[in-house]
Amino acid sequence: MSQFSIAVLAGDGIGPEVMQEANKVLDAVEKKFSITLKRTEFPVGGYAIDTEGEALPAKTLLGCEQADAILFGSIGGPKWDTLPLEQRPERAALLTLRSHFDLFSNLRPTRIYPGLEGLSPLREDIAKSGVDVLVVRELTSGIYFGQPKGREGEGEEEFAYDTMRYSKREIRRIAVAAFEAAQKRRGKVTSVDKANVLVTSRLWREVAEEVAKDFPDVELDHIYIDNATMQIMKNPAQFDVMLCSNLFGDIVSDECAMMTGSMGLLPSASMNEEGFGLYEPAGGSAPDIAGQGIANPIAQILSAAMMLRFSMNLNDAADAIEKAVVATLEKGVLTGELLPEDKRDQASSTSQVGDEIV
Amino acid sequence: MSQFSIAVLAGDGIGPEVMQEANKVLDAVEKKFSITLKRTEFPVGGYAIDTEGEALPAKTLLGCEQADAILFGSIGGPKWDTLPLEQRPERAALLTLRSHFDLFSNLRPTRIYPGLEGLSPLREDIAKSGVDVLVVRELTSGIYFGQPKGREGEGEEEFAYDTMRYSKREIRRIAVAAFEAAQKRRGKVTSVDKANVLVTSRLWREVAEEVAKDFPDVELDHIYIDNATMQIMKNPAQFDVMLCSNLFGDIVSDECAMMTGSMGLLPSASMNEEGFGLYEPAGGSAPDIAGQGIANPIAQILSAAMMLRFSMNLNDAADAIEKAVVATLEKGVLTGELLPEDKRDQASSTSQVGDEIV
Ligand SMILES: CC(C)[C@H](C(=O)O)[C@@H](O)C(=O)O
Ligand SMILES: CC(C)[C@H](C(=O)O)[C@@H](O)C(=O)O
Repeated sequence: MSQFSIAVLAGDGIGPEVMQEANKVLDAVEKKFSITLKRTEFPVGGYAIDTEGEALPAKTLLGCEQADAILFGSIGGPKWDTLPLEQRPERAALLTLRSHFDLFSNLRPTRIYPGLEGLSPLREDIAKSGVDVLVVRELTSGIYFGQPKGREGEGEEEFAYDTMRYSKREIRRIAVAAFEAAQKRRGKVTSVDKANVLVTSRLWREVAEEVAKDFPDVELDHIYIDNATMQIMKNPAQFDVMLCSNLFGDIVSDECAMMTGSMGLLPSASMNEEGFGLYEPAGGSAPDIAGQGIANPIAQILSAAMMLRFSMNLNDAADAIEKAVVATLEKGVLTGELLPEDKRDQASSTSQVGDEIV
Repeated sequence: MSQFSIAVLAGDGIGPEVMQEANKVLDAVEKKFSITLKRTEFPVGGYAIDTEGEALPAKTLLGCEQADAILFGSIGGPKWDTLPLEQRPERAALLTLRSHFDLFSNLRPTRIYPGLEGLSPLREDIAKSGVDVLVVRELTSGIYFGQPKGREGEGEEEFAYDTMRYSKREIRRIAVAAFEAAQKRRGKVTSVDKANVLVTSRLWREVAEEVAKDFPDVELDHIYIDNATMQIMKNPAQFDVMLCSNLFGDIVSDECAMMTGSMGLLPSASMNEEGFGLYEPAGGSAPDIAGQGIANPIAQILSAAMMLRFSMNLNDAADAIEKAVVATLEKGVLTGELLPEDKRDQASSTSQVGDEIV
């Protein structure tokens, strides 16, 4: 019987509640598919700061190293926002995990589910045009990590600087990830850059063109980041896979997420070249609704499905979860934020949605 | 009688046609306000490449230096897209003019006009919520111009880099511009950054806070760029003035422009500390509709109004133009792209709209 081990990092805010539902679903998967998914919980984020003195304790990092994958909840909240930047949950835990495990390939699927178009801030005809975009974001290089970075000088001439930097190798591996994903989808990659201004973007474009030669069945086009933010609003159905650098992917994936109007449904995967990965909901820790049992667990559950698919190659199990989610949405077992205001009294709780998916 | 001189750079695509209408309106302003607005035309962009061999000929630059302001049309088109980057119209003409005249302060007002909400790609309730945003973008520094920028190394380790860089002085002057603008509007500045990742953004935030102390009547808040692109979609009416660095302002202003669904109405101003400025429509050269007499001249005409206001202090004349534009829109004298598809046969031509405003 195959066995996998998972480091479970629930974190802050709604993290622990939605993780509980993902765990229920993974329990069901164990039975149905006769596999063992050994889970070990570790503290992370603000909770770890409060209990262990730091956002990513050594034992958490060690636990992640020993696991086959990390299932991550969400971290951060107003309580820890006044800490120095380096100690804050986002930077000290999330960015550190990304770079420690070289999780360069971030996949963020965003779709508008049939029946939920009314949640989108976009006009009805646009929301109903069949929106299904996969943002493939480079996650361990670019201006987030490029050196040098710092501050120099005195008085009004004091200046700060950051370096956007990409090597061919770094661009190639994320471009390959995007093309491979497009082969399994609608066969189109749109690479996002600012090649009319940035040297990094010109290299990005060159390497994307080189990689395209190895994928004759995939179409490649290029779009400037400023135009991309416009087209996502005007005609999002034109996009299949969007290939982005770290900063542009941060922007594009969040705009795509908002376009669906249902952030609580969106999972994400961050993987390295060995298939090890961190899987987390695209939304945040939502401290305002934490502890009330009303948070949507679907993003966390779909993140677990991505984990089974990408880090454990358990495609049948992943398919089963994804189908159960769609069936649950179709049946109308929905948390409140997915319902029109006048129907919120029919909302299901976090655990009711989890149970239905199980 | 007061006299001003204007360098008129019509450029490519629809530039010349819409400039003709702006000229008509300026002729009317001369008579009504008894002033002289001496205009001299100079070649720029693709047209200048074709006729003079370069996108910004020396005589054009000299003509701009001798004028009180530059009224700019639009440049670029597929014909010149295959040129090396440094020779292309956008870079060789537009970026050079911005940096030559130190046009650091870029103002891009975007509003959804009453009656035109149906053009917005946003849901009707959002489009009707009273959207009126001024993007104040830093235009001569940041990652567009920061040094070093280049390529190094060999093979797969070859890498490219760009430097994002801001001094306190550079941040302060654009922040002051944003706060001054907010004082004349609804008294709110939202500063856009990525302070959880970028050192430049942290300095940006610090200086914005310092400047805020001198403007006790203006409220300041901060938003991350990724969240900004989401909030613009979800609730754009929350914003009054958005203060942005060069790259983030490029992204935010284009997303705001698209949100209106009527790019042909949006002007922009790019000014230096002496009040010298370049005024141009926010949209592009639209080569696909050029020469057909159907382009909307309003963005160009409103750009001329901004020029009168900011570089010539002719507020009455600027007010008169802006009122005439609103009256024209209310009367329904509209170019085709502002009309629903089934009413396009009632569209007015470029020159009819110009005449009505005159
Ligand atoms: C928390 C922050 C550093 C992070 C990022 O910008 O990468 C977040 O916005 C994300 O997209 O995961
Ligand atoms: C043409 C390009 C370099 C320019 C920019 O990015 O500044 C344009 O997008 C703009 O916003 O005026």
